[in-house]
Amino acid sequence: MSRIPRIVILGAGYGGIVTAIRLQKELNYNEADVTLVNKHDYHYITTHLHMPAAGTDNPENARVNILKLIDEFKIDFVKSTVVQIRPQEKKVILEEGTLSYDYLVIGLGGEPETFGIPGLKENAMNIRSINSVRFIREHVEYQFAKFKREPSRTDYLTFVVGGAGFTGIEFVGELADRIPDLCKEFDVDPSLVKIYNIEAAPTALPGFDPELVEYAMNVLKNKGVTFKIATAIKECTPDGVVLATGEEIKSATVIWTGGIRGNHMLEEAGFETMRGRIKVDDTLHAPGHDNVYVLGDCSIVMSPEGRPYPPTAQISMQQADVCAHNLVAQIRGSELNKFEYKPKGTVASLGRGEAIGIVGSKKIKGGAAAVMKKLIDLRYLYIIGGIPLVLKKGRF
Amino acid sequence: MSRIPRIVILGAGYGGIVTAIRLQKELNYNEADVTLVNKHDYHYITTHLHMPAAGTDNPENARVNILKLIDEFKIDFVKSTVVQIRPQEKKVILEEGTLSYDYLVIGLGGEPETFGIPGLKENAMNIRSINSVRFIREHVEYQFAKFKREPSRTDYLTFVVGGAGFTGIEFVGELADRIPDLCKEFDVDPSLVKIYNIEAAPTALPGFDPELVEYAMNVLKNKGVTFKIATAIKECTPDGVVLATGEEIKSATVIWTGGIRGNHMLEEAGFETMRGRIKVDDTLHAPGHDNVYVLGDCSIVMSPEGRPYPPTAQISMQQADVCAHNLVAQIRGSELNKFEYKPKGTVASLGRGEAIGIVGSKKIKGGAAAVMKKLIDLRYLYIIGGIPLVLKKGRF
Repeated sequence: MSRIPRIVILGAGYGGIVTAIRLQKELNYNEADVTLVNKHDYHYITTHLHMPAAGTDNPENARVNILKLIDEFKIDFVKSTVVQIRPQEKKVILEEGTLSYDYLVIGLGGEPETFGIPGLKENAMNIRSINSVRFIREHVEYQFAKFKREPSRTDYLTFVVGGAGFTGIEFVGELADRIPDLCKEFDVDPSLVKIYNIEAAPTALPGFDPELVEYAMNVLKNKGVTFKIATAIKECTPDGVVLATGEEIKSATVIWTGGIRGNHMLEEAGFETMRGRIKVDDTLHAPGHDNVYVLGDCSIVMSPEGRPYPPTAQISMQQADVCAHNLVAQIRGSELNKFEYKPKGTVASLGRGEAIGIVGSKKIKGGAAAVMKKLIDLRYLYIIGGIPLVLKKGRF
Repeated sequence: MSRIPRIVILGAGYGGIVTAIRLQKELNYNEADVTLVNKHDYHYITTHLHMPAAGTDNPENARVNILKLIDEFKIDFVKSTVVQIRPQEKKVILEEGTLSYDYLVIGLGGEPETFGIPGLKENAMNIRSINSVRFIREHVEYQFAKFKREPSRTDYLTFVVGGAGFTGIEFVGELADRIPDLCKEFDVDPSLVKIYNIEAAPTALPGFDPELVEYAMNVLKNKGVTFKIATAIKECTPDGVVLATGEEIKSATVIWTGGIRGNHMLEEAGFETMRGRIKVDDTLHAPGHDNVYVLGDCSIVMSPEGRPYPPTAQISMQQADVCAHNLVAQIRGSELNKFEYKPKGTVASLGRGEAIGIVGSKKIKGGAAAVMKKLIDLRYLYIIGGIPLVLKKGRF
């Protein structure tokens, strides 16, 4: 009977897929059984999703078949949805079946955080998966078709994006780029189309360099985006949004990008969570569970200033490196590494040919930043799939 | 003051646009003022609409800018919607303005005939204009996106086409061709998609050669179409259709192609109508109005057997030739021609590479018929716009 340890990885997002890829390199033959579990048979590139959501890129460019990324002879892949985690029994319940583990890696991703705003869950769309962005793209196009039937319904041409963080800003940039094409395709006067970006915080892109934020807002305003900053959404209804100011914006399309929380299953499993996230120890374990690693949106990592780092692809991938190393170390009885986040910079796209960013300590903007954004995207494809994936999915 | 007669043409469909093109050739300088009125600034090729409706062709290929077809120095063009015809006053009321005429050509096209079936007007879509086919295309795509959100809702993947006449048959052929692409795009199992074609008459394509009808149905059945022939729709609801048999088909998409009637303004104008159509005299005048010509879907022409010819592009164009000749003849005081329909054959497309048809007295089917269909389409482009239009809009 096999006595080799069993590693189960839940989720093939940034954290899960990179952990799997690292493990298949570092583990020796028969050193561990690794099983990757994911809802879909593809990994998707979350940082790309704003483009297919706006319809400016094909969703195919934002996903990669998992079996192209992992070596099936080294790692098992199970396409199923996780239903429950039972840390006491070292079991994971799937929609179809059950898996036992010795080591568990939780990289299940986040869920939209609606901060209790009434109606947001029911009436707003979210940019969070291939299915959801295809839905948004089709929904947006459908509004143009509907408007041509009922030209008095300008709410069909009003698009509300809640949240001016990274996803919100990148999405309005793409949407603003798409609108002229949609207007041409459906014979719609572009002056009738409105895009609102609404943010409760006192600034767009909270935490980002103010000079770059101003640059970004000017670029987007020139593309036709109306900002309402320091303005909370009080309610979302089937007819649009009501703001804290009392103002009502009639809109058939509300897209919420205002927050992410951890997966609801973590709390249900008995882990201590904050907004559904587990504050991991310095070796990335869930506190008190030295066989459970938590990565990405499900984890909280504190900065030296004692504030949680925002959950990004970058931090997930760095976590995955440490997680894979530590799993191998635990199996071999060697020393574990401590996780320390090394921010390498951030670039936010503002649509075609425009972006802003910080690389190292250098501010960049405009075309140079857009090129940098593209390089970061290509680098990621290279990390997970090498040159062949760069050539296949990279948009040049 | 100008005493030259004023000709107003209502509608730039097959009848109206061909009449205008013929008049601008035949009329001498200052012999008449001709004004063409149309709701849109484009003419659309109704016989193509089933393709953009299914999403198998770009709607741009089904329309032509009117100013590319007429010579603005010879013919005035007014983009407006006709609101009322006042034959007593020789006036036409437009949404923006009023036109007086000495001669009127009515080519306003038809409206869907729902035969009083409850709910059809409110809940079914129609293939009748560029706007309506863009709507259908977007609606169909949206259903796939919605299904991915709610996989229990198979009604999102059930498409009901009411009517198995020309439009119905040609549309289901295209839709069946589009489904595999949509399934691939949205990761949907093709076996979940259902296309129903429902016809109350005892046969599909009533009046067509039975051998060809059987061939057509077999081609379409092999593409996944389910026929319900000799089966009336009793009711259309927001949830689907109820058949006369009591069977209910749950569907989020009902497209009605079951009938065409004349424009409602004709009856309001005091003309004697049958299903909104005017039975024209043998010089194409509305009875008792020797200055009013009626063409296309607004007109009825009786066959020698005493039955109305089905309204087709072909008959409209032949009417336009006679109408233009007779207008010139009336102005010059020369002899009017009598209209006699000369059926040149009919070809119905069944989707990619498949068609059936009668040309002269010869039955054709399969690839040869599909080629013939294409030639007929190209011939029409040539008639209205010459070689340049054939090159621009012809799909080869």
